[in-house]
Amino acid sequence: MQQRSLLSNGSRPTGNFRNTAYMINKSRPYFDAAHAAGLMAVQGRSTTGRTVVLGTGPLDSRPEVIDFVRCSYLGLDNHPLIVAGAIEAIEAHQSLHWSCARTRLNFDLLAELEQTLSEMFCARVIACSTVMLANLGVMPLLASGQLTGGRKPVVVFDRIAHISLAYHKPVVADETRVETIEHNDMEALERLCREHPVVAYVCDGVYSMGGNSPIKELRRLQERYGLFLYIDDAHGISLFGRQGEGFARSQFPEVLGDRTIIIASLAKGFGASGGMVMLGTADQEALFRRYSIPYAFSVAPNLAAVGAALGSCKIHCSAELSERQKRLAQQIKVFDHRIATVERGNPFPIRMIPIGSEAEAIAVAKELIDAGFYTSVTFFPTVAQGKAGIRVCITADHEESDIERLCDCILEKLPDATAKPHMPSAPALR
Amino acid sequence: MQQRSLLSNGSRPTGNFRNTAYMINKSRPYFDAAHAAGLMAVQGRSTTGRTVVLGTGPLDSRPEVIDFVRCSYLGLDNHPLIVAGAIEAIEAHQSLHWSCARTRLNFDLLAELEQTLSEMFCARVIACSTVMLANLGVMPLLASGQLTGGRKPVVVFDRIAHISLAYHKPVVADETRVETIEHNDMEALERLCREHPVVAYVCDGVYSMGGNSPIKELRRLQERYGLFLYIDDAHGISLFGRQGEGFARSQFPEVLGDRTIIIASLAKGFGASGGMVMLGTADQEALFRRYSIPYAFSVAPNLAAVGAALGSCKIHCSAELSERQKRLAQQIKVFDHRIATVERGNPFPIRMIPIGSEAEAIAVAKELIDAGFYTSVTFFPTVAQGKAGIRVCITADHEESDIERLCDCILEKLPDATAKPHMPSAPALR
Repeated sequence: MQQRSLLSNGSRPTGNFRNTAYMINKSRPYFDAAHAAGLMAVQGRSTTGRTVVLGTGPLDSRPEVIDFVRCSYLGLDNHPLIVAGAIEAIEAHQSLHWSCARTRLNFDLLAELEQTLSEMFCARVIACSTVMLANLGVMPLLASGQLTGGRKPVVVFDRIAHISLAYHKPVVADETRVETIEHNDMEALERLCREHPVVAYVCDGVYSMGGNSPIKELRRLQERYGLFLYIDDAHGISLFGRQGEGFARSQFPEVLGDRTIIIASLAKGFGASGGMVMLGTADQEALFRRYSIPYAFSVAPNLAAVGAALGSCKIHCSAELSERQKRLAQQIKVFDHRIATVERGNPFPIRMIPIGSEAEAIAVAKELIDAGFYTSVTFFPTVAQGKAGIRVCITADHEESDIERLCDCILEKLPDATAKPHMPSAPALR
Repeated sequence: MQQRSLLSNGSRPTGNFRNTAYMINKSRPYFDAAHAAGLMAVQGRSTTGRTVVLGTGPLDSRPEVIDFVRCSYLGLDNHPLIVAGAIEAIEAHQSLHWSCARTRLNFDLLAELEQTLSEMFCARVIACSTVMLANLGVMPLLASGQLTGGRKPVVVFDRIAHISLAYHKPVVADETRVETIEHNDMEALERLCREHPVVAYVCDGVYSMGGNSPIKELRRLQERYGLFLYIDDAHGISLFGRQGEGFARSQFPEVLGDRTIIIASLAKGFGASGGMVMLGTADQEALFRRYSIPYAFSVAPNLAAVGAALGSCKIHCSAELSERQKRLAQQIKVFDHRIATVERGNPFPIRMIPIGSEAEAIAVAKELIDAGFYTSVTFFPTVAQGKAGIRVCITADHEESDIERLCDCILEKLPDATAKPHMPSAPALR
């Protein structure tokens, strides 16, 4: 009886990829402690620069902190052109959002944004409501082989690829073989390229917890073996390149070609809201615009996001972009001059201060917020157990004096973090 | 050598759930034809009511259609209070969006929205940037057993549960057993409840292609067997209930309890942008606010979405809501009086006109748009092969005369679709 009405995909757990219960049970005490310390579930409002007024209620009665949590690396998230772009778009359309599949009906302004981004980044750009949905949209297409000439690739993930990529491993594994290699292990990747006719590699451009992918080496493997590259450069967009094409895109030729997809944020460095997919061919674009699940069944970026992104495009096409890029590089130097990190000397705005013990990292972050500096305490599952630390996001909008004062506070708690003058810097781009 | 550096989760494809290549290859000709007919990838701008100006360029040179594609069932998506709410929020904060984990930093206005929604819907409501991400956030928690007292449930999906739910089957199946039952097959569900100590059922409240879940019967199974219910009511929100609590929520007791999660849209009937999760307990809320992946790693609703939703809350708490609900019911009757569908007589705004042949459905939709009515032609993979048709979304904002003229056009092409006076209506709520 039962077999008749149950469909064929009843299954025992495969257990290859996730153990949510273990993760929750292991991390619960860290979350409890971080909440008790006032480091998580914080509410607030930005005022000027990187200042955030904490809590709710009347603004003048609330404590202020300097925020080193937000990833608005160029300080654009309260830029007047972006704010004005958002408002103008809503006013012009007298709507914020349409509930309909993008396969059917799209705001004309969204077409204008995609055209502008495509020209800026020399790619076929599709704007999405979030980076996570951009990734969700491409992953099944990649698994299907439709992006690799009809042949299913072995899909290889970097072990620390962002959860918005790694989440999809079981979905990809339902259609093709999935492998996970150690972080930036180019030898393992090359072996897989030699052993399998079609390989796709999934990685971050700039990693959210520090560091980057070796793009030049990946391009070598692409040229030698035809490796398909899928790079989520959410944290690298806008920070590099004449028009802010970002860490990954700026290291590829003008024509992106048919074996590279770059995902980027319209928030973070870009300063607006949402994500984007950079594609190289008309076939890829047609596939995405028909079969990307979020494109067909979920929301487009709302008009405020579209207008804000158009505002940011104006900044990206002006001299202000390179001024902000330079200012960011300068602020990173200020930090690196004082504090030793693995990331020291690299051109990215993310610095991880290793502490080890979760309890100690939470205590340090608490002392920092009490001193007026809001940083991200990082612990399992974001990083490995026993590898807790403090993440600092430096932006072009921080005052040099704020960074110096933050460094003073860090060194007061962690004197061993002092940068020694003779300490070797990380190579600029690995 | 290779085994050393590859991690343990290298895998052969499991092949239980997805066959993207098959889906693409089968549906390609339908997509080609629908694009050629100008029915897909349409751009436009709304003007007043349900009128949309198609194309790009100067507004006065572009053709107009009456839109029956958008799911703004109460006609709220260009309501002045919602538009004003979006603009006010951006102006007050001089920001649109912050790039940071919601586990860390949140706009104070978002806390206000969640408080308001929680009071309106008698639940712990968490706002999300999209419904798809709300679902992505809960699915691994459901699979882990953390929502069912630490015991992993057998997770049962309705066969036509929305793709934003069905997508996650391989992810859930990595952690626990997954079953798929025929649409609304309560006998099969009850058998599973008898056979397994912990069962969770995943379904839509109102289905996007017509029809609904039998909530009363599901509640009976919940009371009898402790069945956990996960209901995506994206299409049912706002249409029912004194404050628009929607199809699913309005059929549960005031206290939601620890075995029901309802997902809803902040767009569609609600008229703003984004999604929401309705939870029943503090433990569930703490779990979601720590471990939901999009909550921790992806974007919050942007401030325009938050402000728009607050605007919509005002409408939901005023007499205007029930006026719009009544007007929608009236417009549905106008349609049902003329056109025979399976959905005839049910209180939902989605009507499917069955045609069968994909080519014929596309031809009919093309004649309709040429006559000034934009409807959704539906074909595989949205519906089964050979079951193509036309979807009509009726809203409170349509003019009765527009619906009558649409029906005239439909009957001109499909005279068999005439509603016979003696034809039985669908039961109001199955």
